[in-house]
Amino acid sequence: MASWLQIPKDSPFSLANIPFGIISASASRVPAIAIGEYALNLNTFASSGGFSQLPAIQQHLGVFNQPTLNAFAALGRPMHRQVREYLQNIFRVDTQFPQILKENADLQKTALVPLSQVENQVPMQIGDYTDFYAGLNHAYNIGVLFRGPENALQPNYKHLPVAYHGRASSVVASGTPLHRPQGQILANPAANPKLPTFSPCKRLDIELELAAFISIPNDLGKPVSIDEAEDHIFGLVLMNDWSARDIQAWEYVPLGPFNAKNFGTTITPWVVLIDALEPFRAAALEPGNRDSLLPYLREKRTDNAYEIPLEVEITSKGGQPTVIANTNARNLLYSFPQMVAHHTITGCNLRTGDLLGSGTISGTEPKTQGSLLEQTNGKTPLKLADGSERMFLEDGDTVILRGKAGSDGNYVGFGDCTGTILPPVAL
Amino acid sequence: MASWLQIPKDSPFSLANIPFGIISASASRVPAIAIGEYALNLNTFASSGGFSQLPAIQQHLGVFNQPTLNAFAALGRPMHRQVREYLQNIFRVDTQFPQILKENADLQKTALVPLSQVENQVPMQIGDYTDFYAGLNHAYNIGVLFRGPENALQPNYKHLPVAYHGRASSVVASGTPLHRPQGQILANPAANPKLPTFSPCKRLDIELELAAFISIPNDLGKPVSIDEAEDHIFGLVLMNDWSARDIQAWEYVPLGPFNAKNFGTTITPWVVLIDALEPFRAAALEPGNRDSLLPYLREKRTDNAYEIPLEVEITSKGGQPTVIANTNARNLLYSFPQMVAHHTITGCNLRTGDLLGSGTISGTEPKTQGSLLEQTNGKTPLKLADGSERMFLEDGDTVILRGKAGSDGNYVGFGDCTGTILPPVAL
Repeated sequence: MASWLQIPKDSPFSLANIPFGIISASASRVPAIAIGEYALNLNTFASSGGFSQLPAIQQHLGVFNQPTLNAFAALGRPMHRQVREYLQNIFRVDTQFPQILKENADLQKTALVPLSQVENQVPMQIGDYTDFYAGLNHAYNIGVLFRGPENALQPNYKHLPVAYHGRASSVVASGTPLHRPQGQILANPAANPKLPTFSPCKRLDIELELAAFISIPNDLGKPVSIDEAEDHIFGLVLMNDWSARDIQAWEYVPLGPFNAKNFGTTITPWVVLIDALEPFRAAALEPGNRDSLLPYLREKRTDNAYEIPLEVEITSKGGQPTVIANTNARNLLYSFPQMVAHHTITGCNLRTGDLLGSGTISGTEPKTQGSLLEQTNGKTPLKLADGSERMFLEDGDTVILRGKAGSDGNYVGFGDCTGTILPPVAL
Repeated sequence: MASWLQIPKDSPFSLANIPFGIISASASRVPAIAIGEYALNLNTFASSGGFSQLPAIQQHLGVFNQPTLNAFAALGRPMHRQVREYLQNIFRVDTQFPQILKENADLQKTALVPLSQVENQVPMQIGDYTDFYAGLNHAYNIGVLFRGPENALQPNYKHLPVAYHGRASSVVASGTPLHRPQGQILANPAANPKLPTFSPCKRLDIELELAAFISIPNDLGKPVSIDEAEDHIFGLVLMNDWSARDIQAWEYVPLGPFNAKNFGTTITPWVVLIDALEPFRAAALEPGNRDSLLPYLREKRTDNAYEIPLEVEITSKGGQPTVIANTNARNLLYSFPQMVAHHTITGCNLRTGDLLGSGTISGTEPKTQGSLLEQTNGKTPLKLADGSERMFLEDGDTVILRGKAGSDGNYVGFGDCTGTILPPVAL
């Protein structure tokens, strides 16, 4: 698909994508799409008759005059599909409706905003954020570190998508800097008795994840069946689940991670619709696992993974960027529909805007792991391009996660998931 | 304090209390207080000039025309205190302002609603719900079951208030029935390999807790100091953290409870202001623990517990009520201000309306435990008044938690925290 708008060949926001987000415009927040190097302000577009050739949306134009995408998401997948295809039509070189935008210089001027001038926002009001642990290789690698290769995966791992509830309040948009967290750590884990000290985190890590936003809610007590689960997913973002490994090691028994994760979680601001990822479906990581699953988790299709190359880049303050990991979204044992089915099987209600993280995505080869802990084990430092070494993150480090499926001119990507570590706050 | 309104001597909502909640009135939800056997509709009261003698609230009367208490809570503790004391004045037999309500039969008729006609509501929009594990005896009892008495408490337990993130979407108001959850359980834990089956929960339990609502938020990256933490607490409710023990046992490694808890959490609808509980402060459970805490958790005062008698009652369908446990809120090792200080020490932001559960409250003697697991260990059944036995909950069982501090005529209580178990839904 070619566009009348100049779109760089390597842009993650090709005409094949059309991701939705929230931008700041004259002191209010409004829905937008990203296309090439621009955001299209959907509030301005809608109020200027931009959607006049799409009858289905006419009763719902108010969703484009909202500070979050929740109302649009709640319209459901068939409507998202129509709106996305309509906007692709609008931007196509052979658009059926040239008068709407292609030949309307005034609307181009008011509705198209350079992405460089856009402030990133969390695109949805997140009711609850749940983090899964579906990255098989990550779970294995971490299991080896803690329990050795014989018992790396817990007995439940291949039967259900393990998850824990995360912290919704501290989910921030790409570009938001975060202070190094402080808390209780065990300076000498071998000492007896174990006495914690108060300290800035010394083992600050990243976790490369995908995450899904929920569109259609389900009522309390009404599980979502596996066959309907995908229609409850609005779209995906990239996520960095920052992790304070030393705080985690001391606090996490017996109820799981808490302060080690609650200080910040960074997401990309553009939601890639689930339909935009359809061409990149790929075979499941372990197709044989399907048959041993209980029926409520058994998907009909076996291409329930996505072929999306992912990378992790670290740049020290004033230094050169270093890509420290390349991996792929295929490294997930469970799909997002399986996560939805499992999450709701007890009757738990998901609401529009809820966020489900995939768990850390790692490959099996060196330099394919989505966390520093897996790459260094706190023992073997990474070398950055500026010659410095990293066991874990230093103050001033900027981490960028990237991911895009497809090829030149047709990428479906997420854009940068960026965060910089600031020194700990003075107490 | 005596009132011109008839208030039963054993009412948890004496003039000494004045708890705030949300009631349904002509199809909308509005703030109210509970007093004796009535709710006072604060929207009607405010719009009829009820607050005319309280200058401080005049600019903020809009908080009483909201479907949640969030806006009122966000005004902060000094304002809550003034409003509570003003309303106590209004209801006192020797009120300074008899013309407002005491001698105003019309306003009594429109603003006072019998509690029996009020539908309970969750009083706040809950951003995040966190569940702590501060019930020392509960943690010990559970630890004994899993690891024996020597290692019952984990090494971190007396150094930090252990917690995990809970599920906000499924917090429901007292009276909401819940379906027995279904999910993966391990029918034969001793088998090798471990193969789960799909089943209705067979070990459905309760957890008796107190919970605090947050009033004043803190910014991301800005911890709340222990000395200021109490002023971030709006008030307390009673909470039943329903727990599916068999689902939990299989799912919880390594990231903690998830589906075992996310199907429902029941709270009392009336928020007892933190100031109303001030007369019931009591010595800390283990005063000596204070000195071994890191400074960010060390409270100046040592009376950081509350003397609040609590009870758990079970009634089988059509049967007689049986009080199965009597205990006290003093059985918490950490206070809510300590929980706030710990929760935010890494920089995590709390928002107005966030809910912090205490963890299960249990005593050390028989019949003082706040969960069935502790009382029966799944082995020694309880006897109910109707002659039936309970290891865990049966379909049709109604559980009521109650708690009130003080004495006849002056109780400060929470009212009933009620839930009935319905059969599992058909899938």
